[in-house]
Amino acid sequence: MSQFQVRTDLALETREKFEEDNVEIKGVRVEEEFRQEHDIKITTMVIETENGAKAMGKPRGTYITMEAENMDCQDEDYHREISLELAKLVRKLLPDQKEPLSVLVAGLGNREVTPDALGPRVVDNLLITRHVLKEFGKYAFGEEEVHAVSGIVPGVMAQTGMESQEIIRGVIEETSPDVMIAIDALAARSTRRLSRTIQITDTGINPGSGVGNHRHGLSKETVGIPVIAIGVPTVVDAATIVSDTMQTLIHAMEENSHLSALSTGLNALNDMEKYELIRELLSPQLNTMFVTPKDIDESIKRLSYTLSEGLNIAFA
Amino acid sequence: MSQFQVRTDLALETREKFEEDNVEIKGVRVEEEFRQEHDIKITTMVIETENGAKAMGKPRGTYITMEAENMDCQDEDYHREISLELAKLVRKLLPDQKEPLSVLVAGLGNREVTPDALGPRVVDNLLITRHVLKEFGKYAFGEEEVHAVSGIVPGVMAQTGMESQEIIRGVIEETSPDVMIAIDALAARSTRRLSRTIQITDTGINPGSGVGNHRHGLSKETVGIPVIAIGVPTVVDAATIVSDTMQTLIHAMEENSHLSALSTGLNALNDMEKYELIRELLSPQLNTMFVTPKDIDESIKRLSYTLSEGLNIAFA
Amino acid sequence: MSQFQVRTDLALETREKFEEDNVEIKGVRVEEEFRQEHDIKITTMVIETENGAKAMGKPRGTYITMEAENMDCQDEDYHREISLELAKLVRKLLPDQKEPLSVLVAGLGNREVTPDALGPRVVDNLLITRHVLKEFGKYAFGEEEVHAVSGIVPGVMAQTGMESQEIIRGVIEETSPDVMIAIDALAARSTRRLSRTIQITDTGINPGSGVGNHRHGLSKETVGIPVIAIGVPTVVDAATIVSDTMQTLIHAMEENSHLSALSTGLNALNDMEKYELIRELLSPQLNTMFVTPKDIDESIKRLSYTLSEGLNIAFA
Amino acid sequence: MSQFQVRTDLALETREKFEEDNVEIKGVRVEEEFRQEHDIKITTMVIETENGAKAMGKPRGTYITMEAENMDCQDEDYHREISLELAKLVRKLLPDQKEPLSVLVAGLGNREVTPDALGPRVVDNLLITRHVLKEFGKYAFGEEEVHAVSGIVPGVMAQTGMESQEIIRGVIEETSPDVMIAIDALAARSTRRLSRTIQITDTGINPGSGVGNHRHGLSKETVGIPVIAIGVPTVVDAATIVSDTMQTLIHAMEENSHLSALSTGLNALNDMEKYELIRELLSPQLNTMFVTPKDIDESIKRLSYTLSEGLNIAFA
Repeated sequence: MSQFQVRTDLALETREKFEEDNVEIKGVRVEEEFRQEHDIKITTMVIETENGAKAMGKPRGTYITMEAENMDCQDEDYHREISLELAKLVRKLLPDQKEPLSVLVAGLGNREVTPDALGPRVVDNLLITRHVLKEFGKYAFGEEEVHAVSGIVPGVMAQTGMESQEIIRGVIEETSPDVMIAIDALAARSTRRLSRTIQITDTGINPGSGVGNHRHGLSKETVGIPVIAIGVPTVVDAATIVSDTMQTLIHAMEENSHLSALSTGLNALNDMEKYELIRELLSPQLNTMFVTPKDIDESIKRLSYTLSEGLNIAFA
Repeated sequence: MSQFQVRTDLALETREKFEEDNVEIKGVRVEEEFRQEHDIKITTMVIETENGAKAMGKPRGTYITMEAENMDCQDEDYHREISLELAKLVRKLLPDQKEPLSVLVAGLGNREVTPDALGPRVVDNLLITRHVLKEFGKYAFGEEEVHAVSGIVPGVMAQTGMESQEIIRGVIEETSPDVMIAIDALAARSTRRLSRTIQITDTGINPGSGVGNHRHGLSKETVGIPVIAIGVPTVVDAATIVSDTMQTLIHAMEENSHLSALSTGLNALNDMEKYELIRELLSPQLNTMFVTPKDIDESIKRLSYTLSEGLNIAFA
Repeated sequence: MSQFQVRTDLALETREKFEEDNVEIKGVRVEEEFRQEHDIKITTMVIETENGAKAMGKPRGTYITMEAENMDCQDEDYHREISLELAKLVRKLLPDQKEPLSVLVAGLGNREVTPDALGPRVVDNLLITRHVLKEFGKYAFGEEEVHAVSGIVPGVMAQTGMESQEIIRGVIEETSPDVMIAIDALAARSTRRLSRTIQITDTGINPGSGVGNHRHGLSKETVGIPVIAIGVPTVVDAATIVSDTMQTLIHAMEENSHLSALSTGLNALNDMEKYELIRELLSPQLNTMFVTPKDIDESIKRLSYTLSEGLNIAFA
Repeated sequence: MSQFQVRTDLALETREKFEEDNVEIKGVRVEEEFRQEHDIKITTMVIETENGAKAMGKPRGTYITMEAENMDCQDEDYHREISLELAKLVRKLLPDQKEPLSVLVAGLGNREVTPDALGPRVVDNLLITRHVLKEFGKYAFGEEEVHAVSGIVPGVMAQTGMESQEIIRGVIEETSPDVMIAIDALAARSTRRLSRTIQITDTGINPGSGVGNHRHGLSKETVGIPVIAIGVPTVVDAATIVSDTMQTLIHAMEENSHLSALSTGLNALNDMEKYELIRELLSPQLNTMFVTPKDIDESIKRLSYTLSEGLNIAFA
């Protein structure tokens, strides 16, 4: 039953769902690290086989997740640590190429909807260098090796009439970067993860992910160059939160001893009937809604700064 | 059981809840009108007695609600009709005073959180006249009677360290307006109402209302001059949507014939036990979250324009 | 001497400069109309020959200028008239093509610098239809002929590291519009013209024009499809205003009878010496500065609305 | 003649003007320091007597100016140094009071006009603490002494219909801070100083200063508590730049040997005639215009961050 209405853009949560349901997935390798001094947990998940990819509903590749309880707090020094860690992880996922690189950073999402503004606001704070290098050469920076960084905020379809993918493909064709970094706000399953998790993957953006839920995919297959995606969950789908709670309610009824009569009744329903019961109750309007914290503006401000710092360090 | 976690800033929905529960409320008079040509429904509710006020959990006074299915559509002519109607309703609630009036419009809420930005953005589009009248007199406008309109966007506590109430009281003390219009984004119970309903009341802003849920009250008692509040629901509290759906689920189980065993089981629970069951399932984090449509940016843009037009017409 | 430091993006002003200097230009045809009821002056200038183009420093083509004293006033009905007129002029310059058209509107300039934000803000208020047509077909609009409108805000080089031209070429390659409309804030020579003039031309954007002064050209030659440019002057170059005033001063000295000694002295200088005199006084920093009205925010707000209305009417 | 059209909000420049004209001012004490390692020059000017105040056209008090060539460059470490220095200077000017203090920071100016947005954007990045202290007490911060910081962005008259002074007086009356810090963008005489100078004064805001040129004064006399004003010049008045250049031109003519005939002619004019000559040439429209750098958006972004950091350090 758990496949119903549970949408998450985090590979970590997809895997957790399997664990909840006691399903084993093959072809997925997982490693966990804990940086005690900064209270950061790093999970590296590699989907190694096509079967693993099918089971996970996500393409083969590496998914690194940084989790930190304090990521949503107002502490500049701590955010510096996260930026440094992020820079390391991004560089780890970069394809082996001769350096310096030409990097296009795409800030996906809708600047006008607070939890979806992460991508655009990361690009606002980036150190953009491509135009200076083109005009003055690397000596403008007094260093041996300078990466050329460019940035684009493609906007959303209601604003442009175009897919982000169309705009980005065009820009790549014209400016020929070596690699693209795509920044996006994500949907999680659990409210507990919002603004406290960063996912970095070398598989790019999956079709259908993001806050607005209408993204076409952005990957080497669709844009022609390697795409590293960096995402932070900032919303939970309204349908997900409601269906999740209802399942918890049903589960509680089944477990709860002083509700034994209920338990009997529900056991009489098969999974399909439970599914139907919930589907009837879920208003179709919920599919166009999301859940987000009331102070999301402060999280987005902090996170966008932390992410752009990470990229500025990675490509300095 | 229905009083649990169901928060709404709409008097209309508070009353509907009583009807659902088959509770009759005394001291509340209701009139409904339907403007067929523009598909606008207007409900006027007058809380006439202290008992009515206590039952409704809202102060005595008049609550007018405009409902229109198409309020959330992109049709300028239609929005003009709503602005005209709004202007009439606002003028109807104005205290009897010698005109021209000096009017302070306060745009409450957080400009940085999209569904809470309604108030600030209404003030952005207002025709502000007070300073011109003060400098050049009414002849600057070539008319007999010109109202003096001023506007303030007090911001939210995390931005200013101050209550909106403190800022507004100070501004009123210094500039002595005759009446205040407070614009605010509201929380509804039903997602169906979001961006399609306008509530106008002469009771001001209730403590605890609004998207951010931390407003102190703004009324004649607290700021010293009559306060007309204009609100549009743009969010549903996450706790409300979840608890509401769970209650519907339980209700469905109780009603549903092929779930009769369940029915028996649930009937064995009294209201308090059901309440406890839900409370356990509701994560406390939900109280800091709201549900809002993915295209809320477009609704806020349109609505803020429609509301400022309404006020510009009312005080032209 | 007048060619010195006098930069203007308005063909009208280039021609005036020739008239000031009593120079006749061949190959340029001019027609003037006056719409008395709305106090709008329309000048159509056609640069017909290569010699005319060389003399004017602008490519061959049609330059239409709307001038209206009240364009900078707060009167919605009047702005409606300007929008209607603009729609007519834009349609007049459209290439003969089978309709409906696919139109890309590019909002050039820097959203973060008020007088340069015109282009981006025009796109903010456009009726974008391309994505709806692509998904639902023209019947979504219940009309026979619906133009597909898309919009792009390419940003400026300091923000993206890329030329607007690069981004726009890429977008055109991917989405194949029939025609492009480029909106841009312009530099005028005279402060009197700021926010009161609209120039519409079928020659596109000239290299070096605009507030930021770094635009590459955007024309059929460089982007592959016809480009209609719509511009409004919002700044005067600081070097232009200073050198213009100094020339007026020198001119006044030469003319002024009670300054006859001066006159003699200045007459002793040839044009080259006067040029050198001014050049020495002009700080090189002035070339990175512009002059703009203190209330430019209000002008940009109104004008961007008037221009997007014009385009919405033209492509409805 | 030099008093004509030369407006500056910098006490430093007022004094320089006197030096240019070889006028000695009494009652003004000046000290200069140079922090070589950070290339920062600090000038402390104390207007000690009423005569000094009259001569300077500024009230008695202390004016500290920080000048640094690199203040307008993109170097975070360097900006940290400036923030630290600013914090020291602000604390130096604070009145002797028992600590911890309650501090109101007012961000003056117009958020919608880039060079005037400095004040509002400084408040955006402040660490606001008053509401936390009020709710949880100083132990929320785990420190002995915590200052209560609140912030207000009063907006400009065209947006609110009210004077900044009215709003601020009201806020002070309601919230009783011990001291106010007013942040404002200033007009300089020299373009060379733009974005490279910070003026800190214990005399508050002078009437008529600022980019918009319409400020009423904000000082202990008008708002009832000590006011420390922090300003950065971001514009030059258009009339100032033009009249200044014309005076330089006339001066050059008088000095220049190969223009001796001119020299004779101009010497025949007395100062009043020269004044009239310039006044005639200065278009009245220039008084409503300012000159600002094309990349003012980047300067404002950096400077607002540097100033808020300085205040965050001063009141941590």
